[in-house]
Amino acid sequence: MNKTGTSDLKYLFNPRSIAVIGASRTPGKIGHDLLKNIVEYGFKGEIYPINPVADEILGYKAYPSIKHVPGEVDVAIIVVPVDKVTSVARECGEKGVKFLVVITSGFGEVGNVEAEEELLKIAREYNMRILGPNIFGYTYTPVRLNATFGPRDVLEGPIAFISQSGALGIALMGWTIMEEIGLSAIVSVGNMIDLDVVDISKYLAEDLNTRVITIYLEGLKPNTGFKFIEEMKKVTKKKPVIVIKAGRTTKGMVAVASHTGSLAGTDHLYNAAFKQAGIIRAYTIEEMFDYARLFATQSIPRGDRTLIITNGGGVGVIATDVAEETNVPLLSPSSDLISKLRETMPWFGSPKNPVDLTGQAGVDNYVKALKIAFESKEVDNIVLLYCRTAILDPRDLAKAVAELYNDYRDTGKPIVAGFVGGLDVREAISILNRSGIPAYPSPERAVSSLSKLLEYRSYLLKNK
Amino acid sequence: MNKTGTSDLKYLFNPRSIAVIGASRTPGKIGHDLLKNIVEYGFKGEIYPINPVADEILGYKAYPSIKHVPGEVDVAIIVVPVDKVTSVARECGEKGVKFLVVITSGFGEVGNVEAEEELLKIAREYNMRILGPNIFGYTYTPVRLNATFGPRDVLEGPIAFISQSGALGIALMGWTIMEEIGLSAIVSVGNMIDLDVVDISKYLAEDLNTRVITIYLEGLKPNTGFKFIEEMKKVTKKKPVIVIKAGRTTKGMVAVASHTGSLAGTDHLYNAAFKQAGIIRAYTIEEMFDYARLFATQSIPRGDRTLIITNGGGVGVIATDVAEETNVPLLSPSSDLISKLRETMPWFGSPKNPVDLTGQAGVDNYVKALKIAFESKEVDNIVLLYCRTAILDPRDLAKAVAELYNDYRDTGKPIVAGFVGGLDVREAISILNRSGIPAYPSPERAVSSLSKLLEYRSYLLKNK
Repeated sequence: MNKTGTSDLKYLFNPRSIAVIGASRTPGKIGHDLLKNIVEYGFKGEIYPINPVADEILGYKAYPSIKHVPGEVDVAIIVVPVDKVTSVARECGEKGVKFLVVITSGFGEVGNVEAEEELLKIAREYNMRILGPNIFGYTYTPVRLNATFGPRDVLEGPIAFISQSGALGIALMGWTIMEEIGLSAIVSVGNMIDLDVVDISKYLAEDLNTRVITIYLEGLKPNTGFKFIEEMKKVTKKKPVIVIKAGRTTKGMVAVASHTGSLAGTDHLYNAAFKQAGIIRAYTIEEMFDYARLFATQSIPRGDRTLIITNGGGVGVIATDVAEETNVPLLSPSSDLISKLRETMPWFGSPKNPVDLTGQAGVDNYVKALKIAFESKEVDNIVLLYCRTAILDPRDLAKAVAELYNDYRDTGKPIVAGFVGGLDVREAISILNRSGIPAYPSPERAVSSLSKLLEYRSYLLKNK
Repeated sequence: MNKTGTSDLKYLFNPRSIAVIGASRTPGKIGHDLLKNIVEYGFKGEIYPINPVADEILGYKAYPSIKHVPGEVDVAIIVVPVDKVTSVARECGEKGVKFLVVITSGFGEVGNVEAEEELLKIAREYNMRILGPNIFGYTYTPVRLNATFGPRDVLEGPIAFISQSGALGIALMGWTIMEEIGLSAIVSVGNMIDLDVVDISKYLAEDLNTRVITIYLEGLKPNTGFKFIEEMKKVTKKKPVIVIKAGRTTKGMVAVASHTGSLAGTDHLYNAAFKQAGIIRAYTIEEMFDYARLFATQSIPRGDRTLIITNGGGVGVIATDVAEETNVPLLSPSSDLISKLRETMPWFGSPKNPVDLTGQAGVDNYVKALKIAFESKEVDNIVLLYCRTAILDPRDLAKAVAELYNDYRDTGKPIVAGFVGGLDVREAISILNRSGIPAYPSPERAVSSLSKLLEYRSYLLKNK
């Protein structure tokens, strides 16, 4: 694991110069596509393509070897065939490279453990750190660095994503773009022969551009479980960490073993470890990013009493069910609060919790009810629900709520939205998300996500 | 409950003529928007707007009362204010109307039980059946009937949806359009003073245009639980039924009571009832339509042995986990099958289950593996997974799979797809769904949906 302290990862995430060893002029080749991403995503540092025959690639002067590069090199990204990796690594060592990002596969994941050991030995000898091997690269958006061969236009935002699976990680890069999920970092950790999930998490815990860390985890190296808990405890004191752990079941563990060669371990051990470390567990990919979306914008609330505001009884009932099942305490409003809320709705509405503004609710009804909720000392968290009605265009509602939220953002009172309907509802959800209000296409996902914020809150309270 | 047998519902779903009592010329009014949907969605029968002052509405001659209508009226849709409903209903009885579809609210759901009882008495007197009151209408796409004030362009397909919640039902109409979910019928049942969930389900069980019935249920009328089980047993022998039951928790039940006035009942009673009746339970809206999408196209398989084919280890592991958790038995391929599958992949792939074609897989690898799976007698069900890679455009894969499927559709071997990635993956998912292959944006949702088909299969086997 970490030998020299994570502050040393500064130049991995903020490199002044990057070499791509195995850079290629041929589109479709990893050595081309990765370099292209670095160039086109807008990295501002020095870029050195390394290629034995090319003079220039993608407008950058190419060098026959790392040794020929004139300046210092912070990061060397290695995409040469597996049998060339160690010799290239040694050259990097001699050059004084700080980080080796080894894309190349064919190491431990196919039983080639010797090559891994030799690579690690070289790295230790020259005091280099290794990310990988068998990875798709990494991204750090604050410095416009996309050193992956995945999709280029990663959106900037406060969510960091660490992936132990390459294919899934790349696929999710595209997915986050489509879903408008903003990321600070994407780190493919692959075989983790040196830098591992914990090292990266520790660095990101200190990173000002990251608010929440998400991890796709298949397994830890043998005998690192205790250290994992101890180190991740420190991380979760600073930032929420959401993990999806694959290989939960017996068959899943076998599948993991044949995938990355990790030990998936018994699932209940992981569960206990996550709990102890204050890690939030997600069970599906969608859940992980649902939760992250909320943590990315909402602060830890003062309390857990939650008010649901809706225009439809049905979604109110669904939200109530999920709230009870996920331990989100629904506020019993005082008679004072009830009488205030009653003024926001027609006579057949319900001022209790869920507050049902009825299908006749317009923007005004919602705005009035939300103001009361934001201003009430009884209410710690707000769940805003909407069912598409002919009366109220969801985009109008979203805009009004976003505007209102500007006045109340400083209260730090979490709000989460669940809007149900068609295309215009999808647009409304997007408006809300862009305004910093986590919004989902169902009441279930909104409430589940909020429940994780409250779970994290209660962990922090117990582990001050 | 049902007094005269459900075959009598024929003219509700296939009316020769419809009157809209309370039809209006003013856009935005329910009496206008509902009539407009009937007209514009393309209903071919007679349409009679009823309005005391208008001569003509939306190009149709209007009549001052139902009594003035020249021809027979199968269905009268009532949108007049609550205090006028009973007198209008009596006129309908005298006219010989067969079905009253009572949109109007302000009945039992706000405590006005007397009005409900009177309305029901009139219906019994004249041998009319009632849908509602307090509903948004109903849709039956095979005859291009959209008698709702919800979205107009409902897509045709084999999924029927019955909703006890009005607002949620309307919102989900829009959602199904966006998600390209094809529907045969949408029925808002509201207060169910006469026709209820069971009556509608029984009719749809016989309906040739419906393959699967989905129900949003809040609760049953008191003392109808036993009958519900007995009648729904008959329905599920013919068609799969998927129910999302709201009001699962104590607080959720209280919310139901204040919403529709139904008794939500103890959740474990419902669970037992559903199990006995062969009803598949969904826990979220998304799940319900995920499952329905699969039942809409896939047949009951011969067996339950399932093969996963993937290009990414990570999604393979996730799928394996979900398979084990949801009782989807993963096939242990014979050595013969393994050696066949090995020919479809690079040397570092895995021919075991999950079959990992690796990130280097192209269309050819998938097509070869799929052919083997379709032709193998060991394989009963196929789970097709894909992670976005630079090598393989998901749309190309989707088109190739759709074409291949044409040759194997008749095998009746279920196939389900989980594709992970960005916008082009979303397009690929859409291509697959249009080709009759249920496809989802995650491995979890694909496998969970398949598990419900196997659950239904095993229910049918035990209840022959």
